[in-house]
Amino acid sequence: MTTIGILGAGQLGRMLGQAALPLGVTCRFLDPAADPPAAAVGRCITAAFDDALAQQAFAAGCQALTWEFENVSLAAVETLSALVPMRPGAQALAAKQDRLDEKRFFNDLGIATAPFAPVSSREELADAVASIGLPAVLKTRRDGYDGKGQMVLREPADLDRAWATLGAKPLILEGFIPFLRECSLLAVRGLDGEIRCWSLVENEHRHGILHRSLAPAPHAWVLQAQAETAARAVLERLDYVGVLAIEFFQHEDRLLANEFAPRVHNSGHWTIEGAVTSQFSNHIRAVAGLPLGVTAMRGHAAMINVIGAWPILADLLAIPGTQVHDYGKAPRPGRKLGHVTVVHEDASRLADLIAAIEALVVAAAPERALPRVASGQ
Amino acid sequence: MTTIGILGAGQLGRMLGQAALPLGVTCRFLDPAADPPAAAVGRCITAAFDDALAQQAFAAGCQALTWEFENVSLAAVETLSALVPMRPGAQALAAKQDRLDEKRFFNDLGIATAPFAPVSSREELADAVASIGLPAVLKTRRDGYDGKGQMVLREPADLDRAWATLGAKPLILEGFIPFLRECSLLAVRGLDGEIRCWSLVENEHRHGILHRSLAPAPHAWVLQAQAETAARAVLERLDYVGVLAIEFFQHEDRLLANEFAPRVHNSGHWTIEGAVTSQFSNHIRAVAGLPLGVTAMRGHAAMINVIGAWPILADLLAIPGTQVHDYGKAPRPGRKLGHVTVVHEDASRLADLIAAIEALVVAAAPERALPRVASGQ
Repeated sequence: MTTIGILGAGQLGRMLGQAALPLGVTCRFLDPAADPPAAAVGRCITAAFDDALAQQAFAAGCQALTWEFENVSLAAVETLSALVPMRPGAQALAAKQDRLDEKRFFNDLGIATAPFAPVSSREELADAVASIGLPAVLKTRRDGYDGKGQMVLREPADLDRAWATLGAKPLILEGFIPFLRECSLLAVRGLDGEIRCWSLVENEHRHGILHRSLAPAPHAWVLQAQAETAARAVLERLDYVGVLAIEFFQHEDRLLANEFAPRVHNSGHWTIEGAVTSQFSNHIRAVAGLPLGVTAMRGHAAMINVIGAWPILADLLAIPGTQVHDYGKAPRPGRKLGHVTVVHEDASRLADLIAAIEALVVAAAPERALPRVASGQ
Repeated sequence: MTTIGILGAGQLGRMLGQAALPLGVTCRFLDPAADPPAAAVGRCITAAFDDALAQQAFAAGCQALTWEFENVSLAAVETLSALVPMRPGAQALAAKQDRLDEKRFFNDLGIATAPFAPVSSREELADAVASIGLPAVLKTRRDGYDGKGQMVLREPADLDRAWATLGAKPLILEGFIPFLRECSLLAVRGLDGEIRCWSLVENEHRHGILHRSLAPAPHAWVLQAQAETAARAVLERLDYVGVLAIEFFQHEDRLLANEFAPRVHNSGHWTIEGAVTSQFSNHIRAVAGLPLGVTAMRGHAAMINVIGAWPILADLLAIPGTQVHDYGKAPRPGRKLGHVTVVHEDASRLADLIAAIEALVVAAAPERALPRVASGQ
C-alpha cells in the first residue's frame, strides 16, 4: 500500500485524495485548519506545517510527500525532505519565493515575460517607470496573492501614493502589457523524467479570482507549442516531479509567462472530466513513481468556479452535462466553494451551457456580476 | 447536507461514495464485514442488516436509503423503509427473490425470456424437459448466484443426478438458448420518473464471473431500442428510483431477458470514464432526488475485471489511457479486487489496448486463461 503525505488539506488535497483512491494510493494530510475539505478522503493531522512532532507523525510510513499549497515555509519543506522524498522538491518552492527571482528564472530559460525591474527605493521606482513606461504594476516581491500587495500605476502622480503604500517592502515593477487573454498550461513530469502537457487553457479572472477556464484556449493550435516549450524548460531545470501550472498573458501571437504554480491548479480542474487523465490523477501517479496517464482532451471543456454562495444544486445539475464538485466548505463571500465542469464536442453548444451555468452562479453571488477588473496582472 | 444510507459497503458502495462526494452528498454504510471497501469514503456501521439497534443508528439523519447488494433480507429493507424513504423500494427487492417470479415478471411486461418451467417434483422435471428440450439448465429458484445452485442437463441421463443434487429445493428449468452473446443494459429512473439509459454492453463471463464488458455492444444500433423498452417497463412497473441493470442473451436479433439486478452493476463500471455521467453518480442523483445526468457515451469503452491477483500497477498504467480502480481488498482466488477501464474513439485501437490489459490480468491470475465456460446461463 502506497501512502502519500500532502501538505495542505484544502480542496486541492481533497481532489488529490479522490484521484488517489482508485489507484490504491492512500493520502494523509497535514494542515493547521480543523475539519478541512480533504478530511473526507484521508486522515488529517491538524497542526502547523513547522510543528516538529506533527511533521514526524505526518511523514512516518509515507513513501513520498507533496504539497497542494505553496504558502508552506521552505524550512518545513526542507525538514520533511530529509525524512521522505518530497515531490516536487524544495527547489521548486524556492524558485517561487520571490517574484523578481521568478521572472529572472523564466528569462534565464529563454521564456519571455513582460518587462520588469527591481524597485528598492523611490529613485529606482522613477528609473523603472522611465524604462518600462506606464501603465505598469508595482508589486511586492514576496507574499502577494489574489491581487493583494500590488497597485496599478497609470500616471506619474500614482508613483508617490504607490511608494507610500508598498515601499516598505522589496518591490518589482512590471510592464502592463495589453494582453488579449490570460492562459495557463498544466504539465506533469514523472519520476522517470517523462513530460506530458494538457491543452492550453483560457482563464477569465474576476476581482482577482479565477472565474472560468476554457480548454482548449482560442488559438491553442498556434500557442500550444510555445507553452509546452516553456513548461518543459521549467520542469527540467527544477528536476520537477508532479503537476505544474504556468500562467501566461497572450500578447498578439506570443505568450509571456507571468508566474508558475508548483502544484495542481484551479485552471486544471476541467481535466477531471475533460481529459483522459486528470491533473490530480497524474500528480498522484508522478509522486508515487507510476507511469503518467494520457493527457489528451475529451471534447471542449469549461470550468466555472462557485464562489461565495451556491446556486440550488438541482438547478445546476439540470443543465445537461454538468458535473458539480462541492469542496464541503462553509459559504463565505469570496471563498471558492466548488466548481462546475461541462464538456461538449461542439464548442458553440458548450457556450450555451456555460452561459446557463454562469447565470446561476452569478445569481447566487451577485457581486460576481461586476465588470471584469482590468488589473489581472 | 444530504446524507444517504447504503446497505452494503463493498466496492459498489465505495464507488457510490466516491461519486457522492463531489455532489456534496455524504454516504454512510451498514455492513456486517469489518473494514469493508467503502470504509475509505464514509462511516461504516459494522452490524448485521437485521440488527434493530444498528438499523436505528444507520437510518438516523439520513434523507434516503439505498442498497448496493441485493442479498439483504426483505424484512430488513421493509423495516428500514418505515424509517426513511428506501430507493429503490422494497418491491424491487421482492421481485428478485425467486427466479420463477422474476421470469414471469418479465413475461407479464411483454419482455421475452428463454422458455422456462417450474419444477417441484421429479415428474415435473421430466415434463419440463419434454416441453423445453435439451440442453437446459436446472436452477434453484432462490439464493443462487455466480453459477452456484444450477446444473446443465445435456442428455436424459443427467436428470436423475441433477434431481438428486438440487431436488430438495424449489427449482426452475430454463431452456438453453444458443445465444450469440450476453448483453446488459444499465438504466436509471429519477424520483420524478425521468428515465435514462446507457449504451447496451456486451459482457463476457469466465468461470461464472464477469470478465469483461464492452460498450457499445456489437449491433447495439439494432438492439438498443429493444433493451430500453424492456428497461422502461421494469422501472415503471416497480416505481423504481435509482440504477437498475438487466442482463440479456442475444439470440439472432432478439434480446431475451435473463435477470435484473436492482442496483448499480459490474457491467456498468465503464460509465465512470466512458459516459458523461456514471452509473454511480446517477444512482446518487436519483436517490437524493436530484436531476439525472447525461448518459451519452464518450467513445468506445472497455472494462476488465481484476480477479484474484493484481498485475503490477505500473504495468497496467503504462498501457495508454488505462484507468485503474482498486477496491482496497485483500487478494484471494476468485475475488473481484478491482477493474481497469479504457476508452478510445477508435474501436480497433481499443481492441489492442484490451488485449494488452487482458494479457496482464491473465498473467497475474493464470486460472482466468482457462477456456470460456459455456454454461453462462
